[in-house]
Amino acid sequence: MAIERADKDLAFMLRYENVAWYDGAEVRILDRRIYPARVEFVRCATHREVAQAIKDMVTQSGGPYLAAAMGMALAAREARGLDDKAFRAYMEDAAYTLSHARPTTMARMIGITKGCLAAAWKALDEGKPADEGVLEHAVATIDARYRKSAQSAKFLVDMFPDNGTVMTQCFAETIVGTMLRECRARGKAIKVICPETRPYFQGARLTASVVKDMDFDVTVITDNMPGYAMKAKKVDVFTSAADVICMDGHIVNKVGTFQIALAARYWGIPYFVTGTPDPKHPTIDTVEIEERDPADVLSAMGVRTAMEGVGGFYPAFDITPPKLCDGVVTDKGIFPPHDVARYHQKGNAEL
Amino acid sequence: MAIERADKDLAFMLRYENVAWYDGAEVRILDRRIYPARVEFVRCATHREVAQAIKDMVTQSGGPYLAAAMGMALAAREARGLDDKAFRAYMEDAAYTLSHARPTTMARMIGITKGCLAAAWKALDEGKPADEGVLEHAVATIDARYRKSAQSAKFLVDMFPDNGTVMTQCFAETIVGTMLRECRARGKAIKVICPETRPYFQGARLTASVVKDMDFDVTVITDNMPGYAMKAKKVDVFTSAADVICMDGHIVNKVGTFQIALAARYWGIPYFVTGTPDPKHPTIDTVEIEERDPADVLSAMGVRTAMEGVGGFYPAFDITPPKLCDGVVTDKGIFPPHDVARYHQKGNAEL
Repeated sequence: MAIERADKDLAFMLRYENVAWYDGAEVRILDRRIYPARVEFVRCATHREVAQAIKDMVTQSGGPYLAAAMGMALAAREARGLDDKAFRAYMEDAAYTLSHARPTTMARMIGITKGCLAAAWKALDEGKPADEGVLEHAVATIDARYRKSAQSAKFLVDMFPDNGTVMTQCFAETIVGTMLRECRARGKAIKVICPETRPYFQGARLTASVVKDMDFDVTVITDNMPGYAMKAKKVDVFTSAADVICMDGHIVNKVGTFQIALAARYWGIPYFVTGTPDPKHPTIDTVEIEERDPADVLSAMGVRTAMEGVGGFYPAFDITPPKLCDGVVTDKGIFPPHDVARYHQKGNAEL
Repeated sequence: MAIERADKDLAFMLRYENVAWYDGAEVRILDRRIYPARVEFVRCATHREVAQAIKDMVTQSGGPYLAAAMGMALAAREARGLDDKAFRAYMEDAAYTLSHARPTTMARMIGITKGCLAAAWKALDEGKPADEGVLEHAVATIDARYRKSAQSAKFLVDMFPDNGTVMTQCFAETIVGTMLRECRARGKAIKVICPETRPYFQGARLTASVVKDMDFDVTVITDNMPGYAMKAKKVDVFTSAADVICMDGHIVNKVGTFQIALAARYWGIPYFVTGTPDPKHPTIDTVEIEERDPADVLSAMGVRTAMEGVGGFYPAFDITPPKLCDGVVTDKGIFPPHDVARYHQKGNAEL
């Protein structure tokens, strides 16, 4: 089974965005834990190995959602030949295993595996292989995400100068690619500054690599430098994605975003966040900021920094108030942060 | 030649503060680049090697001032046996080499090497070895610095609550020790939060080690976290030392200070800087912000983070405007940043 995509950036997409792929026999997942020092794929022969890879953080950010869908296609292949009842039971079990690999994203993962189950049943009804049905569903989901992201990128790039400098934060996944393609299409030769994003260095390892591979000028700085670099390097725009955009305009994103937004306000530089306002979070009070293992901030690239007995604190995200953001960039246009609820109002598709 | 100090914290001081020492034959400098993983000294056989060590950041913060003085003592030994004219020329050359190792603090380094030259001339006039004269001068200078720092610490600790949390930035050297001793003397059980201070991790490696060794509670965070941690951990005071305090109240300190000061202002937390206003810098326009090797920000603890072809930018310092600082803490009291010139006015010793 071969899926071909009419996309000249296929190599790029495979590496950075389509980070997990079912080829009819196994699922390959780009190992982001070691990228870009080495480009290696973890090969999973069963859906259980896919679940373990997700648990082991082989991929992160949006990667697990795709990996889970590909794992469901693989499960459908594993279950080939079972009678209908046994097949359905096997698939339900696989859906549970894959969606419960990590606790924090479980709700969204359950939704994704449910979609895959529906695709599998539909394929069976139509008399075609269930794994093909699941894969087609996964690809359609990616395509929909791309179209949405590409549309958001048009609005975002409207805010960029023709020859300016853009600062990012962490790894904004799909939007980084669509944003840069949009810049290229319009001939906007932007320079990109990426704070390294401790403790996992997503800015230095992932975002900077994408920007470099797409032949844009890219500069990495450490996380204590955005405030100074904004002025020294004449940054025109700061932009980030978001893990949650609350309906009251608060933005939850990788820790550090708040500080950069604050410095951007100080220097008079606009900050635009990309994403979709989330009705499940009417206010910031509904968001719990995840604290991860303190040991992660006491080492860097696997080497211990502080002496034994020194404590650590690792909030994964921080909160940027709507007042520090200049616009929420969506596929339907740019909304003032205080007014993002309008995104979900009927009839705003023409915005 | 042996110098003994009647100080019960000698081991502590040797490790953290008296980080460079001339023993009559060579200068040993604690290698802060690898501390605390390993306690190793770089041994310099000539003053040129001392200058190179300063350039290579073997020591930093206040370390280079002491290293330069010790390097001058070593130069005096190298020049032993030269006739008077050649000796003076050699020493003048050494003073230039040592004081120009790094740009941002050059003015102060020139002052220090000038003091050493005067001590060398005086020793010669008195018919004693010039290297001994320079070393005695260096030790007297350290002692004076300690007395001054201890006095400043009293004023600084006045600003701390009895059981509060203090955020630092980078490695504030002498003042960290005197500040914590003052807290201990007064029974103020403060907790300390240290941003790690990329790219060299001085906060995680040096400051956190001092605080831990002195039995205070210490927590390390990465440099993208101060803005969030200030609120989450209820920080009461932010304090840092400074590489330069200009007479117009601008503060030049390790890059990141500006961002933290900005976040402190946002949350209503006071920021106090310790140091001595520098008449050689009437305004911020007289300060050159040193840019160091961009490669340093593309790796962490010796491990490469970004892929080949990605650029880096490494400003060693940043600038905090007087408006974001709540007081310049000196041995003569606390001055409003805009009014630091008063520090050098006659008759203010009683402040």
